Amino acid sequence: MKKVAVILSGSGVYDGAEINEAVLTLLHIAKQGASYQCFAPDREQMHTINHLTGEVTVEKRNILVESARIARGEISPLTELSPVDFDAVVLPGGFGAAKNLCDFAINGKDAAISPDIKTSLLDFSDANKPIGYMCIAPALIPHIHPKQTKLTIGTDQDTANAIEQVGGVHVNCSVTDIVIDEKEKVVTTPAYMLAQNLVEADEGIEKLIIALLDMA
Amino acid sequence: MKKVAVILSGSGVYDGAEINEAVLTLLHIAKQGASYQCFAPDREQMHTINHLTGEVTVEKRNILVESARIARGEISPLTELSPVDFDAVVLPGGFGAAKNLCDFAINGKDAAISPDIKTSLLDFSDANKPIGYMCIAPALIPHIHPKQTKLTIGTDQDTANAIEQVGGVHVNCSVTDIVIDEKEKVVTTPAYMLAQNLVEADEGIEKLIIALLDMA
Repeated sequence: MKKVAVILSGSGVYDGAEINEAVLTLLHIAKQGASYQCFAPDREQMHTINHLTGEVTVEKRNILVESARIARGEISPLTELSPVDFDAVVLPGGFGAAKNLCDFAINGKDAAISPDIKTSLLDFSDANKPIGYMCIAPALIPHIHPKQTKLTIGTDQDTANAIEQVGGVHVNCSVTDIVIDEKEKVVTTPAYMLAQNLVEADEGIEKLIIALLDMA
Repeated sequence: MKKVAVILSGSGVYDGAEINEAVLTLLHIAKQGASYQCFAPDREQMHTINHLTGEVTVEKRNILVESARIARGEISPLTELSPVDFDAVVLPGGFGAAKNLCDFAINGKDAAISPDIKTSLLDFSDANKPIGYMCIAPALIPHIHPKQTKLTIGTDQDTANAIEQVGGVHVNCSVTDIVIDEKEKVVTTPAYMLAQNLVEADEGIEKLIIALLDMA
């Protein structure tokens, strides 16, 4: 049975992992007969957003503790993740990927990646193990993979340009499809960068998981 | 296109709606070609649980605001829900259903139902529109439907007995199956009362949604 590590970045599209993407990721790993273990950084979120109003609140929340809501408590600190234990790793999107794993949501082309996530993903890349990035998580790719790595965030040109200025080759892609860089073993899908509904997101995420496991 | 109201009770299995059940509910409504709108009570949760440690924290969180994380902000207060606008209503489980919609998790057979959820569900029942309850949400059934209404929470005899003492006829049911009370138009499935993994929960929830829409 292939084992996949899933890296979460909180719980909620505006300040954490996109919940629908995260659950569909876990569902399709399980449907393919593979197993998964969730991980998240054990540190404070960039901020907490009231998802009803869209406003920033004064609350302080921890990424690992909030991610545990999606994982039903079955989650480990990111520092415990090792490619020795897994065949692949995948990152759902949501603003958490662009606020808590790097600061792309704030700084765009000048974004910095968090040292803990950089270490984890470089370990997988160095071990030649496949990595799946969905939604806005491909903003991490230029910090991990060579400049010519193919990726997609859908069709938004401003976002694509900001990522390409750091590195990576953006490929326009529909929500129900994926882009694969076979040399780097990187697979990406737009998910809620484009999805108008859950069925669209589901189709792209299913393809991403199948491609990820094929390369594992 | 049939329209389904989805009532959430927070975001996270230990103090709110079970996130996997909620997302699978929305996914299968969409896959069946129906539309949905999410609702939740606009009031404070019974308490907030740290989902990593299982401990109660000092934080105060609002059921509607937290539910908005699952619904990507597209959610309305429960007071705005009317059966005139929908063909059916469905309630995912999680401890939120047994803590925030009633207090079954604390008081068992002596539980009281929250007045807002009682009003909403009685409105649907009086309009002869179908209602789906999953996981522990069937604990609400004796407060809405007649004493002979058939339901399931899976196979846990203590929980089943506590519900039957208030009303309702419990039927043992596997995680991948459903129980239908055709007279009351009530459909129930065990979901995470029994599910060992997402694939099992997915199968039962898909059947519940198909049955719910058939009766709508």
